[in-house]
Amino acid sequence: MSIVPHPFDPLSAQEIELAVSIVKKAHSDVRFHVVNLHEPRKAEMTAWLANRGSRRPKRVAEVVVQSPTGTVYEGLVDLETPKLDKWVQKDGVQPVITPEELASVEHGIRTDPKVIEQCVISGIPAEDMHKVYSDPWTISYDERFGTDRRLQQALLYYRPDIDNCQYQYPLDFCPIWDPLKEKVIAIDIPKVRRPVVKSPAVDYHHLAIQRQGGYRTDLKPIQITQPQGVSFEFSGTGREIEWQNWKFHIGFNYREGIVFNNITFNDKGTVRPIFYRMSIAEMVVPYGNPEYPHHRKHAFDLGEYGAGYLTNSLSLGCDCKGAIYYLDADFPTLSGQVRKVKNAICIHEEDNGILFKHTDFRDGSTIVTRARKLIVQQIFTAANYEYAIAWTFHQDGTIQPDIKLTGILNTYVMHEGEDTMGYGTEVKKGTVAHNHQHLFCLRINPNLDGQNNSVVMVDAERSPAPVGSPDNYYGNAFTARRTRLETTAQAMTDYDGTTGRTWDIVNEKKINSQSGKPVSYKLVSREVPGLLAKPGSLVWKRAGFARHTVHVTKYRDDQLWVAGDHVPQTSGEPTKGITEWIGDGTESITNTDIVLWHTFGITHFPSPEDFPIMPAEPITLLLRPRHFFTCNPAMDVPPSYSITPSQVAAKGKGALDATDRISKLANDTCGSTCRL
Amino acid sequence: MSIVPHPFDPLSAQEIELAVSIVKKAHSDVRFHVVNLHEPRKAEMTAWLANRGSRRPKRVAEVVVQSPTGTVYEGLVDLETPKLDKWVQKDGVQPVITPEELASVEHGIRTDPKVIEQCVISGIPAEDMHKVYSDPWTISYDERFGTDRRLQQALLYYRPDIDNCQYQYPLDFCPIWDPLKEKVIAIDIPKVRRPVVKSPAVDYHHLAIQRQGGYRTDLKPIQITQPQGVSFEFSGTGREIEWQNWKFHIGFNYREGIVFNNITFNDKGTVRPIFYRMSIAEMVVPYGNPEYPHHRKHAFDLGEYGAGYLTNSLSLGCDCKGAIYYLDADFPTLSGQVRKVKNAICIHEEDNGILFKHTDFRDGSTIVTRARKLIVQQIFTAANYEYAIAWTFHQDGTIQPDIKLTGILNTYVMHEGEDTMGYGTEVKKGTVAHNHQHLFCLRINPNLDGQNNSVVMVDAERSPAPVGSPDNYYGNAFTARRTRLETTAQAMTDYDGTTGRTWDIVNEKKINSQSGKPVSYKLVSREVPGLLAKPGSLVWKRAGFARHTVHVTKYRDDQLWVAGDHVPQTSGEPTKGITEWIGDGTESITNTDIVLWHTFGITHFPSPEDFPIMPAEPITLLLRPRHFFTCNPAMDVPPSYSITPSQVAAKGKGALDATDRISKLANDTCGSTCRL
Repeated sequence: MSIVPHPFDPLSAQEIELAVSIVKKAHSDVRFHVVNLHEPRKAEMTAWLANRGSRRPKRVAEVVVQSPTGTVYEGLVDLETPKLDKWVQKDGVQPVITPEELASVEHGIRTDPKVIEQCVISGIPAEDMHKVYSDPWTISYDERFGTDRRLQQALLYYRPDIDNCQYQYPLDFCPIWDPLKEKVIAIDIPKVRRPVVKSPAVDYHHLAIQRQGGYRTDLKPIQITQPQGVSFEFSGTGREIEWQNWKFHIGFNYREGIVFNNITFNDKGTVRPIFYRMSIAEMVVPYGNPEYPHHRKHAFDLGEYGAGYLTNSLSLGCDCKGAIYYLDADFPTLSGQVRKVKNAICIHEEDNGILFKHTDFRDGSTIVTRARKLIVQQIFTAANYEYAIAWTFHQDGTIQPDIKLTGILNTYVMHEGEDTMGYGTEVKKGTVAHNHQHLFCLRINPNLDGQNNSVVMVDAERSPAPVGSPDNYYGNAFTARRTRLETTAQAMTDYDGTTGRTWDIVNEKKINSQSGKPVSYKLVSREVPGLLAKPGSLVWKRAGFARHTVHVTKYRDDQLWVAGDHVPQTSGEPTKGITEWIGDGTESITNTDIVLWHTFGITHFPSPEDFPIMPAEPITLLLRPRHFFTCNPAMDVPPSYSITPSQVAAKGKGALDATDRISKLANDTCGSTCRL
Repeated sequence: MSIVPHPFDPLSAQEIELAVSIVKKAHSDVRFHVVNLHEPRKAEMTAWLANRGSRRPKRVAEVVVQSPTGTVYEGLVDLETPKLDKWVQKDGVQPVITPEELASVEHGIRTDPKVIEQCVISGIPAEDMHKVYSDPWTISYDERFGTDRRLQQALLYYRPDIDNCQYQYPLDFCPIWDPLKEKVIAIDIPKVRRPVVKSPAVDYHHLAIQRQGGYRTDLKPIQITQPQGVSFEFSGTGREIEWQNWKFHIGFNYREGIVFNNITFNDKGTVRPIFYRMSIAEMVVPYGNPEYPHHRKHAFDLGEYGAGYLTNSLSLGCDCKGAIYYLDADFPTLSGQVRKVKNAICIHEEDNGILFKHTDFRDGSTIVTRARKLIVQQIFTAANYEYAIAWTFHQDGTIQPDIKLTGILNTYVMHEGEDTMGYGTEVKKGTVAHNHQHLFCLRINPNLDGQNNSVVMVDAERSPAPVGSPDNYYGNAFTARRTRLETTAQAMTDYDGTTGRTWDIVNEKKINSQSGKPVSYKLVSREVPGLLAKPGSLVWKRAGFARHTVHVTKYRDDQLWVAGDHVPQTSGEPTKGITEWIGDGTESITNTDIVLWHTFGITHFPSPEDFPIMPAEPITLLLRPRHFFTCNPAMDVPPSYSITPSQVAAKGKGALDATDRISKLANDTCGSTCRL
C-alpha cells in the first residue's frame, strides 16, 4: 500500500481485501462477520507514540467468520507478512448480526406458508404479503433454542401503502428466522389475538404532509458559513485532528462506531495526554412489558448489530450544516467484499454562545468571548430508531458526548378495549409503544498525565456538626466527601441524586501547583437511570455493565467488549464481559492503568408526541478538567470585545473590538444585500 | 400616551415618570426602590384575553420607597386617573437594594479611617486606598443589627494595577455599611489575620493576554446570517411574539428579569394555552464555609438585588450572533428618574441540529428535518458572577430554560500554609474560592387547556412481581408510578435519582384522543441538588423554596415573590413567602389554578480552571409536552430531504430535496468567493 497507515487507523479497503484473501486461501466457504483492526497492543503502541521513529506496531486484522453449518472461527491475520496467525474454533457463540442477515429476513417471511396463514388470521389478504414488512431483530436469548442455532426474531408490520409509516400497523405474532438455513423455524403466536389495525394512516413523509395542507412557510433560512475555512487540521494519514489545543486520532469500527485514541491537550506548549481511548462500548434497550414475546426485546445495538455496521452515510447540508469534513468507513460483506460507507463521520465546528463574560459594575469594563465547539458525529439506524452521537470538544478542556435519539418507536398492536397495564402508551389508537430504556456504556481508558490513574467518587455532604455548634454555628457548612475506589468490587457504584454524585479520574502523582490537588477529569452525568429489569432477569444477566452507573477495571488489551466478545444469543449464564473481568472484585485499581465504564441513558415512557416520528430527545454528559489546568485554559481565545478599567477611563482607547460585524438587527430589513 | 400598552407590558418610561410624579406630590423626599407594573389581576386579565374588545385592565404601578430615615412605604398608583390608590407604611422590612446603593459603598469605604487602618494592617499602604475595591453585598441577616437598620456588607479587594482582576487579591476583613447614613458602622475582623497576597497577577483581559504571547490565531470565523430575515414577528405593542406556532408576551421587571405571559401554541389552527406566566422567581447562592463572616454569604440575587436591575445592555455580535431583535428596559432611579437599559433582552433563532430523522434500512428511503430554536435571553451581573438566562423554545412544543454561569468566583484570602478544611479550593496560590450552590426557583402558573390543572409525580418503578412469577416471568417489567399531589404539604417533593423522578402538570379534564391520558407538560430536570445548608440554618430559614425540588401552591394574585415581598435582611423567623402560603399544608391543589415552584441549580466545588474568569457552566431543564398533542406537532417543518419508498423505487422521482446549498466541504478551498 502506498500510504503507511497510522496504527490506530481502521483497516483500509485494501487491508480488508487482503485479510479476506488470506482467510479464504485456507477456508473458502466461510461468511465474514468481522474483519476489523486488531488494535495495537498498548505497550507496543505507547512506545511508538513516545517515539514515532521507532518500530511501528504491525497491522493485524481480527476476523470472525461462520461456516455454512454454523461453526464460528476467530482469526488474526498478520497483514504485513501476510499470513494467518491465529485460527480458533469458538463453540457456543454467535457472531455479530450483519446488515445482510438483517436484510434477508423479509423475503423469507413473505413466502413462508405458515406466516401467510397467520397474516390472513390477522386480517391481511394472502395476496397482500408484499405489504408485510419485517424488522429483523436479535432474538436476545430464547431458552427453547439456546445459543447454538443462529436465529433472529421477525417483528412484523403491515403497510397498506408502500409509503406508510409501517410502525402504525404492527402484527401480533412473531416468526423465528434461521439466517443460515434461510427459513422460518417457529412462529410465536399470542394466546389473545389482535387483528391488524385498519385506522387511517398518520404519516410523516412529504407526500402526506403536502396532502394535509403542506409545510409551514414561515421558517426563514439560517446560513452558516466559514469563508476562511475551518479551524481544524488533519495530519498524518488524515485521521489525526488538531483543533484548539486538542489533538486526537479518530478511528471507527463495526461495533462502537467512532473511537478516539490518544486524546491530548496542548497546555501552553506542553502536550498533555488525557485519554488513551474513548468510545461508546455498548448499548442495550430493555423493554418493560413482561408479556411474551416482548420480554425478548432488549437489543444490544452495538454488540449484536454494531454501531459501525448500522451507520448512516451523511449528507452535506442535511445531517450537518456549515463547513463539514467527512471520513468514510470500509466494512466487509458476508462474502468478503468491501462495502464503503461514504461520509460515515462528519466533523465540523459550531459557535457555542458565550465562553465567558464579565462586566465590572463600577465602570462597565468588560470582556465577552464567544465559544466554539468541535463536533465529531455519526448517526446510526437500528431498525426503527436512530441515534445521533455527537462527540463535542470544548475550548476549556471539556469533552461532552451529546446524544440525540430520534427515529420511530417500536410498536405493538392492541385489541379493542385492551388495557396497556401501564407497560406502554397508546401512541395512536390501537398501537402501543412499550416503556423502555436506552442504556449506553461509555468506555474511557484515561491517561491523565500518564497511565497510572485512580477514580475517586465525590459526594456533596453537609457538615455533620449541628447548627449552633462551634464547627457549624450557622449551619451552612458543606464539603465534598471523596471516596477513593480501591478495588473493582468497590468501584461498582451508582448515581446518588441526593449528593449530586460525580466521579473524578485522577492522577494522584501529579499535583496542581495552585490548588495542591491531584490533576483530574470529572464525570458529570445526570441522565443515569438504573436498569429497571430486576436482578436475576434475563437482561440483567446479559448486560452486566448496566447494573451500575460506574465500573472500573484494570486495563487489559482485548477487554473492549463489555457484554462479551460475541453478544448475540448469550444466556447471561455465566455472564460475559465486565462481570467476568471483575471476578471476585479484589483487584486493585489505584495508581494503575484503568478503564472506567459509565452507564447512562434514559427511561422512555412514550407519548403520542413521539409518533409517528420522534422529535430528537437529548442526552448529554460532561467530562470536565478539574485541577488539571492551573487556570482557565481558554483565556487566549480572542474575545469579541475587551475593555479594561483604564481604557474605560481613557474613553475606550486601546479597547479590543472584534465584534462580529455580520450580525445584524432582526428588524433591519435591508435584506441580503445589506452592507454593514 | 400615544400607544396603548398591552396590560402585561412593563411600565414605559413615561409611566414610571407619571407614577413618580404622583408619589412625589404627597411624599417629596422618598427614595424609589421599586416602580414596577402592578400586574393585572388574573380574573380581569383572563376576561380581557378572552375578549380583547372588552374593558382593558387598567395600568397600575406598584411603588416601594424608603424615607431618608428608613421608613418603608408600599404604594399603588392608578396610572389612568392618575392617583395614589394605596399608601401603606411597612415596618420591619428592607426594600430591594438598588444599583445606586451598590455603587455608593466603595467611595465611603475608601475614606473611612478605621477601614484605612485595617488596610494598612493587611499590608496596603494608606496612600493606596484608591486601589481598594468593594463588592457591595447584601448582609443577608446579621443578628447584631436585625432588620430595621438598612445595611450592606463590603467584601474588599485590592488591585495593585487598576486593570487587575481584583478577585485574586481579597482582603480579610469586612466593613458593614449603612447606605442611608452613607457610613461604615462596624468592621468584622477575623481573629486570625491574613495579609493581602502579593503574588504575580493572573489576568484575563486583552492587555494581559497580549503580554503573554497574544491570542491564538487559528480560530476561523463562523458567519451566521438570515438573508431573508427572521422567522418571528411581533404584534401589538411589540412584545407579543409569534414563532413556529408559539405565541407569548415577553415582559421584564426589576426582579425576575424576563417574564413570559400567556404562552400558547397553535395546534393545527386551535390556539391552546400552555402557561399563563413563567419566570425565574428567585435565586439564592449559599456558601459552605462556616467560618465567620462567610456564613453570611448567601445572596438572593433576585429578591435582594433584582435580575432586572442587574441586567446587561447586550451587544450585537458579542452577546448574541446572527439576526437579533432587542427589547429595552426602563427602571426608576432612587431619585425617581428613568434609567434605560438598551438591549436588555435579545431574541434570536438558532439552527438546532436534527429535529428528526429516519432511514428505512431496506431501501434507504429517508427523511431528515433540521430543528430551529428561538432564544429569549438576558444576562445579568451580580458583582462577581454573570448569569446568562436563555429561554429556549423548540418546534416540538418543548420549553427549555438554558442557563450559563460565568464571570468570576467570589474569593477570600488564605494565610501561609492554611488548610481550606475542605470548604474551598485554592484557585490561585493564597486565594480560596469557597464551595457554594446556585439554586434557582422556576415559577410556572400553568394553563394547560384551561386554568384547572394538577401535578402528578412520576417515578419509574420495577414491577413488584418476582422474576419467574406469572406477572413478571422474565423480570423485565416496569411501569411509571404516578402520584397525584393532593395538597400543598404533599406537594413538597424532592428529586429521586433512583426513579428518575419527573413531575407532570396535567389537565385531568382534557384527555388525549390517542393515548386516553390527560394532557400534560412534563418537568424533566436533573440538576437538582438539595440545599446543603442544614434544616434550621439561617439560609434554610430564609429560603423556604430551596428546601424542596418542587412546591405547588394554589394561584393567588400577588404571590409572586417566593422568598417574601422584601428579602433583604429577613431573619427567616418567621419565614416569608412560600412557607407562609403553604401554612398548614392542607389546601387542595388538584383541578384548580396552581403554581408550580421548581428549585434547580448546581453545587460548585471550585477548581483552578474556573479562575480568573470562569468558562460558562451550563444548567438546563426541559418542559415537554406529553399527551398534549395527538402526534408529533412538528411534522410540517420543511425537511432538508424526504424520499419515500415509492420514490426510491422510481429512482428518486418526486423526492423533496431542500438541502442547504450553502454548506460546503471543509476541504473545499475555494474560500469566500466560492459559488455553489
